[in-house]
Amino acid sequence: MNPEIIDRLHGVSTATLTMQLLKRGLRNCFIVGARPLNPSACQFAAEAYTLRFIPMREDLSRVEILGDPEYPPRKAVEDIPPGAAMVIDARGEMGAGVIGDILAARMQERGVAAVVSDGPVRDGVAVAAGSLPVFCAGSAAPASLNVHFGADLQCPVACGGVAVMPGDVLVGDSDGVVVIPQAMAEEVARDGAEQERLENFLKKRVEAGHPTIGTYPPNGETLRAYEDWKSANPSDG
Amino acid sequence: MNPEIIDRLHGVSTATLTMQLLKRGLRNCFIVGARPLNPSACQFAAEAYTLRFIPMREDLSRVEILGDPEYPPRKAVEDIPPGAAMVIDARGEMGAGVIGDILAARMQERGVAAVVSDGPVRDGVAVAAGSLPVFCAGSAAPASLNVHFGADLQCPVACGGVAVMPGDVLVGDSDGVVVIPQAMAEEVARDGAEQERLENFLKKRVEAGHPTIGTYPPNGETLRAYEDWKSANPSDG
Amino acid sequence: MNPEIIDRLHGVSTATLTMQLLKRGLRNCFIVGARPLNPSACQFAAEAYTLRFIPMREDLSRVEILGDPEYPPRKAVEDIPPGAAMVIDARGEMGAGVIGDILAARMQERGVAAVVSDGPVRDGVAVAAGSLPVFCAGSAAPASLNVHFGADLQCPVACGGVAVMPGDVLVGDSDGVVVIPQAMAEEVARDGAEQERLENFLKKRVEAGHPTIGTYPPNGETLRAYEDWKSANPSDG
Amino acid sequence: MNPEIIDRLHGVSTATLTMQLLKRGLRNCFIVGARPLNPSACQFAAEAYTLRFIPMREDLSRVEILGDPEYPPRKAVEDIPPGAAMVIDARGEMGAGVIGDILAARMQERGVAAVVSDGPVRDGVAVAAGSLPVFCAGSAAPASLNVHFGADLQCPVACGGVAVMPGDVLVGDSDGVVVIPQAMAEEVARDGAEQERLENFLKKRVEAGHPTIGTYPPNGETLRAYEDWKSANPSDG
Amino acid sequence: MNPEIIDRLHGVSTATLTMQLLKRGLRNCFIVGARPLNPSACQFAAEAYTLRFIPMREDLSRVEILGDPEYPPRKAVEDIPPGAAMVIDARGEMGAGVIGDILAARMQERGVAAVVSDGPVRDGVAVAAGSLPVFCAGSAAPASLNVHFGADLQCPVACGGVAVMPGDVLVGDSDGVVVIPQAMAEEVARDGAEQERLENFLKKRVEAGHPTIGTYPPNGETLRAYEDWKSANPSDG
Amino acid sequence: MNPEIIDRLHGVSTATLTMQLLKRGLRNCFIVGARPLNPSACQFAAEAYTLRFIPMREDLSRVEILGDPEYPPRKAVEDIPPGAAMVIDARGEMGAGVIGDILAARMQERGVAAVVSDGPVRDGVAVAAGSLPVFCAGSAAPASLNVHFGADLQCPVACGGVAVMPGDVLVGDSDGVVVIPQAMAEEVARDGAEQERLENFLKKRVEAGHPTIGTYPPNGETLRAYEDWKSANPSDG
Repeated sequence: MNPEIIDRLHGVSTATLTMQLLKRGLRNCFIVGARPLNPSACQFAAEAYTLRFIPMREDLSRVEILGDPEYPPRKAVEDIPPGAAMVIDARGEMGAGVIGDILAARMQERGVAAVVSDGPVRDGVAVAAGSLPVFCAGSAAPASLNVHFGADLQCPVACGGVAVMPGDVLVGDSDGVVVIPQAMAEEVARDGAEQERLENFLKKRVEAGHPTIGTYPPNGETLRAYEDWKSANPSDG
Repeated sequence: MNPEIIDRLHGVSTATLTMQLLKRGLRNCFIVGARPLNPSACQFAAEAYTLRFIPMREDLSRVEILGDPEYPPRKAVEDIPPGAAMVIDARGEMGAGVIGDILAARMQERGVAAVVSDGPVRDGVAVAAGSLPVFCAGSAAPASLNVHFGADLQCPVACGGVAVMPGDVLVGDSDGVVVIPQAMAEEVARDGAEQERLENFLKKRVEAGHPTIGTYPPNGETLRAYEDWKSANPSDG
Repeated sequence: MNPEIIDRLHGVSTATLTMQLLKRGLRNCFIVGARPLNPSACQFAAEAYTLRFIPMREDLSRVEILGDPEYPPRKAVEDIPPGAAMVIDARGEMGAGVIGDILAARMQERGVAAVVSDGPVRDGVAVAAGSLPVFCAGSAAPASLNVHFGADLQCPVACGGVAVMPGDVLVGDSDGVVVIPQAMAEEVARDGAEQERLENFLKKRVEAGHPTIGTYPPNGETLRAYEDWKSANPSDG
Repeated sequence: MNPEIIDRLHGVSTATLTMQLLKRGLRNCFIVGARPLNPSACQFAAEAYTLRFIPMREDLSRVEILGDPEYPPRKAVEDIPPGAAMVIDARGEMGAGVIGDILAARMQERGVAAVVSDGPVRDGVAVAAGSLPVFCAGSAAPASLNVHFGADLQCPVACGGVAVMPGDVLVGDSDGVVVIPQAMAEEVARDGAEQERLENFLKKRVEAGHPTIGTYPPNGETLRAYEDWKSANPSDG
Repeated sequence: MNPEIIDRLHGVSTATLTMQLLKRGLRNCFIVGARPLNPSACQFAAEAYTLRFIPMREDLSRVEILGDPEYPPRKAVEDIPPGAAMVIDARGEMGAGVIGDILAARMQERGVAAVVSDGPVRDGVAVAAGSLPVFCAGSAAPASLNVHFGADLQCPVACGGVAVMPGDVLVGDSDGVVVIPQAMAEEVARDGAEQERLENFLKKRVEAGHPTIGTYPPNGETLRAYEDWKSANPSDG
Repeated sequence: MNPEIIDRLHGVSTATLTMQLLKRGLRNCFIVGARPLNPSACQFAAEAYTLRFIPMREDLSRVEILGDPEYPPRKAVEDIPPGAAMVIDARGEMGAGVIGDILAARMQERGVAAVVSDGPVRDGVAVAAGSLPVFCAGSAAPASLNVHFGADLQCPVACGGVAVMPGDVLVGDSDGVVVIPQAMAEEVARDGAEQERLENFLKKRVEAGHPTIGTYPPNGETLRAYEDWKSANPSDG
């Protein structure tokens, strides 16, 4: 993925991006239940690296497996490329955390862009105090083994009701996380930036007292006013 | 609705109001899942103006419909009377926002009293930064079209598991939103204010070390002490 | 219960305690849905005193019953021993609060250690402003009678999907509340304190750049480093 | 409980009984999720004997406890009086059966009137082949210990979202099970029988082509026709 | 709606119809939770007539309202045109029936094509014994007033997670009920009938031992074989 | 897997097998929500072959993909070995079928032992009429593409809340489906057969009037009676 596309997506809100995807026929692209653990440090854009949990089974989810360097949840922490976002399929299960403060510290150290899960994290306060953007379902004390078994890495996953393929682009902000199929990332980035600029203009107009009918979405007159404003303010985006 | 009744209700907590309704046989009057987006600006009392979503259908929920001035979710923003509260039936659906920052800005501009929904909002941080009280199920990036179709306005709705009729009185505070049938508003306002005064007295007594048995609810002796205190403090309410 | 054990548990995180319980074969020990109402005042360890609600029935859940000193929810507030934690089985029901500000004030006054429920509380802001640690499912305005009937006291209960027996030890922190069977409390306290010390060491190592493989969980080399560090820092825990 | 009342209730449909309870202010009296396992043998009326499960905990729910004659789920089978109905609070948990074919055979042998639970049973086909009316949530293979611990007997319970007190009267038919508070049983039996007779008359009238408006509920004219018919058919009920 | 279109749809399976809708971009068209009460009498095709319930409120859902000829649930039974299907939005609520045997008998008498709801019915056995196709969520004894208020008629509704507009075409069979937007009915009927014919051919081929790859969906060779067979069997559909 | 083990498991009830697994520490081994579509033809024992769905995404779940011989759900039907059971992870999603009558016919033709899913099937009546044992969540008309994308084959999956690894042994009967880890299959088969024999003896004793206390589970005296009976009836099992 071209890093310029990632950069451009970084500045576009998830609200705007989901509208761009809707215009391209994609409705099912928002991860429900993954909220920013630290709302003041939650903006990111990155390619997805996936980890998948299945339900705990007592013969599989033994404490000893944590020492196995090939156990997917532990291998993931060392193998995810810097700049990627780890997406963890936890089936929305609320009874255990998918990572804790030590794994979060390591991923922050390694330059991971974000962690996104439909399950909670352990040591929530400590994790939130770091600079790693984490989107999850709050916090829970138990280790993932209590309710999960780490099944595999870098496969298609379900997270918060949506499909995520390794290499898809994820963008997060205070509203949550949107999944952008790799093949659409470039045009969504381009059109999203333009939509963002237009909506900033429209919002100011509404705040100035214009009714929403005719303004949002803009009719011909409003669009002409926008074009005029753009000509007059070429660098305001 | 007499504005004095609205005013009086504004000063009564939702905890007190639900007890007044329970005493009149109403248990099902609290909107579950509508939490204040900005807890520091959430008190309101207002008549209900309703908007109803039904599930998305691809032939109905097309992006183009947003430009139709008769599309109920857009018409609502311009037609709701200043001072009313918009109640949005979103079937508790978490995958899309019912309004975003531009519609919220317009309603704030138009003097709307509050927005109440069992679904989330888009641009949650921007919406929370305004002065419009919003009660909802958190935030989500996608537009309502992703999962909804705006079906109609000013009809009876379900919101958070309770019935809301246009013209019912809604009161919100940090605990959430209570629905008061229009016909009961006057007496609930009157008796609620008096209950509030009594409970403030009782709470001080408990904080001073009185056991709750005999104090809350008050027995004869406690009620006499309250009457004495009221006589001595006629304006303390 | 030996107060020293309670004291020792007070300093151990719930994340650590659930791992100690997992090592002893207990996975189902974390109360799901009971979040700290005031995250800055939520640490506690205490024996459980239980209260059980069943669903409202109109002939049972009458307002008058609140004045009956034997009604379990009211009797509980005066009978719970100072230093104990009240655990309230609310079946995860979101439509009513299990206590409000007056009962919370009384329990704080009486030296109750904490209140833990899988239902919400009323007057959430006022309750959160006190010093009583409260773990619950947010706030809701209606009184418990709206949806509950207080059935009994000091019996086994379900809370947040786990079993709690009177006399079990509960420990809470910002991640939530863990239930420790009475018979395991002593050894869990001892081994938990040691695990906590080890993990603090491991976390520093990871923050210093060590990979998690070999460090967390520790291999032989890491354990030797830990033993060396312990010898050099006998009082650092 | 007067056995004549039980007898009279036996002939009244649960649809009629819930209407009688609604007229007396009780809406929350139908056990949701307890369906007849054998629809052709499901009519019963009996006093409630209760058994309560709480969530499994590995230190409590050990296989050995099944051999303890005081373990509530096993004691219940031998202690429930002939003619009573066992109500089992299983919290709607679908992962384990509350009884199996051997316990069902014993209760049938002992003259138990029915078993009612919001959980499934084991050996569903064998249980359904017996003559004991069983209302439950289908069948599941695992024993109750897999997900439950039998906490106590003859206490107030929640079953299918409603409160059941020991001694309440339960009536079941193909629609499910209704709970009648002991104190209301006599008048509900009397008025229910009369309502049943009236509705049989009304149904015939509707089948003969009368519109429902004016017939169901009956207006004055229809009621007069009913009185005439009753005079002419004194024994038709 | 042209009755020929209804007729043609009557012979097409819901599995086929949902595939036709998917090919036209509609995925959200199957009513989840509405199962045939009597699987041996469940085929129908009809235009939708809608009825909408909202949650019970004690001041609205009074028994007396059943005698009001304008109360929507009662008015509906007499006003629905013969040949139409009544679609009842019950919000998936399991605690009360949406109709009982008397209303079902009247609708059967009046020539109603079907009743479809995401809630249960009362008197389930009696309703199933009639010839009116009923799709619902099983049976429940209480009247709709226990948990609902009948809010309005012939408006857009949600049923089983999908949108239904008055005048949409509903088709039901043993798999359940599919909703076809009015504007698509004609072409879906035409192409559905052809797909049905093709799939009957393909199924026989698979039963004769052909692998599914190349057969289902058919490749060029299989399609040629189908065309040959159609020429040889012009009336076999 | 030794076919003799499979054979022996075929004769043991799932109720017995879950008890054998509980005795070995496994509680989470029963697939919740997979009910026999045809209760009269549901007994099977077989190794698991797995298929995994993730949520639909409009760019992935296109109709054209059904013609791709490598699309996992289609490849599975031709690649699953005769005698194996297909386990389909459908995330409990009720809005679409995981297979229909044509794929079921092909798998029956190919000698597949069973199909097990926590989702529904299409063409439920036709599928139930075949001889292939199918365990699922009822029937639904839409194709899997409506709500799913077929992500991969022969990987660990979640089904009905439990983990299934390719090669685990599945056993089904009228109560549902149990998952036996491959490594435990032999001893569970052996001990299960013996438990089954014992329980048949115990059930007859209970039917003959013995109380369950002392009989089920058996005390020393009952066990001696069983041993005597076994000596006298060597081939009765």
